[in-house]
Amino acid sequence: MKQRNRGHHISQQFDAELEDVRNSVLAMGGLVEQQIIQAITALVEGDIKLAEMVIDNDMKVNSAEVAIDEECTHIIARRQPAASDLRLIIAVIKTITDLERIGDQAERIARMGQRLAEKERPKNQYGELRHIGELVAKMVHDTLDAFARMDAEAALEVARQDLVIDQEYDGVMRQALTFMMEDPRSITRMLDVMWTARAIERIGDHSKNICEYVIYLVKGKDVRHTGIGELAKEVKG
Amino acid sequence: MKQRNRGHHISQQFDAELEDVRNSVLAMGGLVEQQIIQAITALVEGDIKLAEMVIDNDMKVNSAEVAIDEECTHIIARRQPAASDLRLIIAVIKTITDLERIGDQAERIARMGQRLAEKERPKNQYGELRHIGELVAKMVHDTLDAFARMDAEAALEVARQDLVIDQEYDGVMRQALTFMMEDPRSITRMLDVMWTARAIERIGDHSKNICEYVIYLVKGKDVRHTGIGELAKEVKG
Repeated sequence: MKQRNRGHHISQQFDAELEDVRNSVLAMGGLVEQQIIQAITALVEGDIKLAEMVIDNDMKVNSAEVAIDEECTHIIARRQPAASDLRLIIAVIKTITDLERIGDQAERIARMGQRLAEKERPKNQYGELRHIGELVAKMVHDTLDAFARMDAEAALEVARQDLVIDQEYDGVMRQALTFMMEDPRSITRMLDVMWTARAIERIGDHSKNICEYVIYLVKGKDVRHTGIGELAKEVKG
Repeated sequence: MKQRNRGHHISQQFDAELEDVRNSVLAMGGLVEQQIIQAITALVEGDIKLAEMVIDNDMKVNSAEVAIDEECTHIIARRQPAASDLRLIIAVIKTITDLERIGDQAERIARMGQRLAEKERPKNQYGELRHIGELVAKMVHDTLDAFARMDAEAALEVARQDLVIDQEYDGVMRQALTFMMEDPRSITRMLDVMWTARAIERIGDHSKNICEYVIYLVKGKDVRHTGIGELAKEVKG
């Protein structure tokens, strides 16, 4: 992104504004990443206080989205940016929508954590949720990294991680189903496990959306709603 | 919206472009509404062919989103709209993201319909899903109506319907859980019922998001992430 914005704006002030927005997105992303990690930790360790903190902090994520939206609207109105900068700003507006929804899912996981903390704990301490949770937290981290560097190849690599998460998700769901059928007393607990796994899987989807915006931004072509194969063609040329 | 755009643009062409975008959104919304209704019908009636059609048609929803996004980007770049028009365009960009995700949920419901069609059918023919499905289809319809008329009061009324849908959703979930516990052989089928109910409930959330954009657009203040009480204060002034 530095290359894109260096030198071709009449106004240094404009460059600074774009840089500010970019930093705001990364800060919001860092907050969201932390929310995921803490939500999973709260759930796995049965830490009700930590879960509460995550739920409270979702407000911060929401405020960040509203603030960045305003920032973007003001920039467009004041600077009337040309195509490439405009594309950046629109990608930002879309990215923060996904980040906000990742935040919602983290809050959901924390609420599940509160419920599960009151129930009997399985021998594996929800190790399967910890595993898939760590995978998706890494995916969000790598997504923000690709966004920060505006690196389409990296974004493609990250988008591919979503397939792994989907597979892990299927595994968790099958296992939970098996437990339910073997022991109907576990049904309500296993449902919570399933809802949590679903929330984690959704985070992967949102992360993938952001990767697609990065690719769109760098390559100038919309790659949403195309398969990974098509994405790869786009990036590799 | 007519009032907003009539007379104050130097270029009639610009007015026509805004009107085009607005019509594109309504057309996309109509398609999405049809997708919901057909997905629910396919599920309730065990109509595998109809379910397939819904799944195929999701492509059309996706293409509409990409096309309208492009339209919006071009308008901003070419027309450099002032604050109020810019707000409209940004609201459109956000609205179509939610419409596209409603489309995804409709596709998900259709897929559940395919799975359920192969299983034993309950006596009530999934009447509870039909009921909540009809509620949410009406909510989407009313949302598009509020959008078409840029009517903040109507948007507020529609946003309120989401509470009813959430209540109905809770009812469906409790009932499915009871069936599961009473008859563990019903677990997989009841899980599909739960996933379907969840998809329907998510459509309500997306619809509410769109209502909030309408209120934002008319009232000029961001009302996302505020409760219904706050929304009402905003609209009634």
